[in-house]
Amino acid sequence: MAGGLKLDEFALIARYFAPLARDDPNAFALTDDAALVLERPGHDLVVTKDAIVSGVHFLPDDPPDAVAKKLLRVNLSDLAAKGAEPYGYLMATAFPDSITEAWLQAFVRGLAEDQAEYGIHLLGGDTVRTTGPLTLSLTALGFVPRDAMITRAGAKPGDLVFVSGTIGDAALGLAVLKKERMVAADVASVFVARYRLPQPRVRLGLGVRGLAHAAIDVSDGLLADVAHVADCSGVQVEIALKDVPLSPEAAALVKNEPALIRALVTAGDDYELIIAAPAQSRAALSEAAARAGVPLTAIGHVEAGQGLSVLGLDGKALALGRLGFRHF
Amino acid sequence: MAGGLKLDEFALIARYFAPLARDDPNAFALTDDAALVLERPGHDLVVTKDAIVSGVHFLPDDPPDAVAKKLLRVNLSDLAAKGAEPYGYLMATAFPDSITEAWLQAFVRGLAEDQAEYGIHLLGGDTVRTTGPLTLSLTALGFVPRDAMITRAGAKPGDLVFVSGTIGDAALGLAVLKKERMVAADVASVFVARYRLPQPRVRLGLGVRGLAHAAIDVSDGLLADVAHVADCSGVQVEIALKDVPLSPEAAALVKNEPALIRALVTAGDDYELIIAAPAQSRAALSEAAARAGVPLTAIGHVEAGQGLSVLGLDGKALALGRLGFRHF
Repeated sequence: MAGGLKLDEFALIARYFAPLARDDPNAFALTDDAALVLERPGHDLVVTKDAIVSGVHFLPDDPPDAVAKKLLRVNLSDLAAKGAEPYGYLMATAFPDSITEAWLQAFVRGLAEDQAEYGIHLLGGDTVRTTGPLTLSLTALGFVPRDAMITRAGAKPGDLVFVSGTIGDAALGLAVLKKERMVAADVASVFVARYRLPQPRVRLGLGVRGLAHAAIDVSDGLLADVAHVADCSGVQVEIALKDVPLSPEAAALVKNEPALIRALVTAGDDYELIIAAPAQSRAALSEAAARAGVPLTAIGHVEAGQGLSVLGLDGKALALGRLGFRHF
Repeated sequence: MAGGLKLDEFALIARYFAPLARDDPNAFALTDDAALVLERPGHDLVVTKDAIVSGVHFLPDDPPDAVAKKLLRVNLSDLAAKGAEPYGYLMATAFPDSITEAWLQAFVRGLAEDQAEYGIHLLGGDTVRTTGPLTLSLTALGFVPRDAMITRAGAKPGDLVFVSGTIGDAALGLAVLKKERMVAADVASVFVARYRLPQPRVRLGLGVRGLAHAAIDVSDGLLADVAHVADCSGVQVEIALKDVPLSPEAAALVKNEPALIRALVTAGDDYELIIAAPAQSRAALSEAAARAGVPLTAIGHVEAGQGLSVLGLDGKALALGRLGFRHF
């Protein structure tokens, strides 16, 4: 019995989760404890796992379909950063008594919509009950051609550093939801949508294979994730805050409150891609970004050395402590 | 920051979890959000995922190294039932504030010991905090040669049905820990060890590839898991309770209290293997079991039809409802 649902685990799986696996005979309609992932000759498998907890990673009253999509998309974002093609996922759900069938229906609808959107399907998992908050974990699998995976460790002096989309909207969405910031309703809805519904840059990741020297998705915060690339690659990266792409809504706020930029580049949850690539690949990267339907903006460059340096909006080097940036 | 630990997530991973991944360059010392599983030509990948919650699947005061091993072993048992060779795992940990570094040290020691025992290693995962009970999920990956995976669906009329090891000890161990049953201390320690520390039959699973028509591990209960095989295979299975192998300690209890057998075959957590195989494979199966160092006992046979039938200790057919057996 899972949570307060009036279904035993097997009935719940058969009714709600098995349809998410129906197109893959090797998922055995979820009647087995395991699934089979057939070899794709010449390809390796990228594996990633993220967990989210109600009240920590999402809000208890977030819509269930949005929670489902967030769970899936934070993992898809990791696959995107590797240039991997989404294949399948396993999911563990720990349901408290407060979960209802209506909640579950909406949760599964969210998964089904994103399965269609991203070409991924459920392979298996586990459904348990908990006395604590709703806890979800998901393991995503994606294929990459042999030796084509993009790592964090390949950035080289002379590379330019790019970021996709816009930075900071998700953080503003969370602030709006927590009533820490008041904005007009139409602006609020832009920010909240970015917080609730990451847009993993899967097509961009696939498109920059062979062009990018290194990539990472922005989950910990733009600066922290750039610093991860710098550390793993053994290089120094310099970022200019004036070049960080903002949505028109976020840019309007920063214009009135320039110090806000610090919060936006350290807050995380953007799920954009940071890409380091040689300058001569710039045109090809732009084409890949256009095909993926997402802007790609140069925000810095790579030098010999180590760590991260940041130029403020005035173009002067910033002490990172002043940004509220803590290097993990 | 995970739980009440005075370490941020990155320091925790670097100190405690990264050593579990150090022998695999494609786990990137856990500094990446993803790991790479290299293709093994001619092999497919079996994937399985189980979650366990403190107070539901283990007791809050169970030793941390035993909790770690249980988490790993319940998944290894699923790989064993498929005849898969353990390869790697991803783990998500949701830590409450009550978790200490001492707890974590013992937990990681348990994982390290089982990694050596079963030839599996950590590939990645996620560490989060929770306001609820300790919640752990693990995705295990194993390789099988193309077309060699054992399923639940292959049992055929005429097959014999075998089970490894002994049944019911884990259930008695839980009863002892919950003070629902009093036994002598030396007997209690036998039962508790079986509850806390499943013995996944990995070597047996590998050894019966090509011999077994179907297999499943006993997690839901002997009868329920036999019924899963019957249902998935579209056959009827008849089991004789007098043939169900018991430890000497459990047999002594059943001798005094024959009705106890009903609890033992419906309780679960045995993590033995049920195997359906043709009678002519019996000698080869016995050899495989001897090589794996585990007894294998014939407990029934497969007929045309559907579902499960059970002969009681007196040899008469039992109404399954009287066994407390509920078919999921």
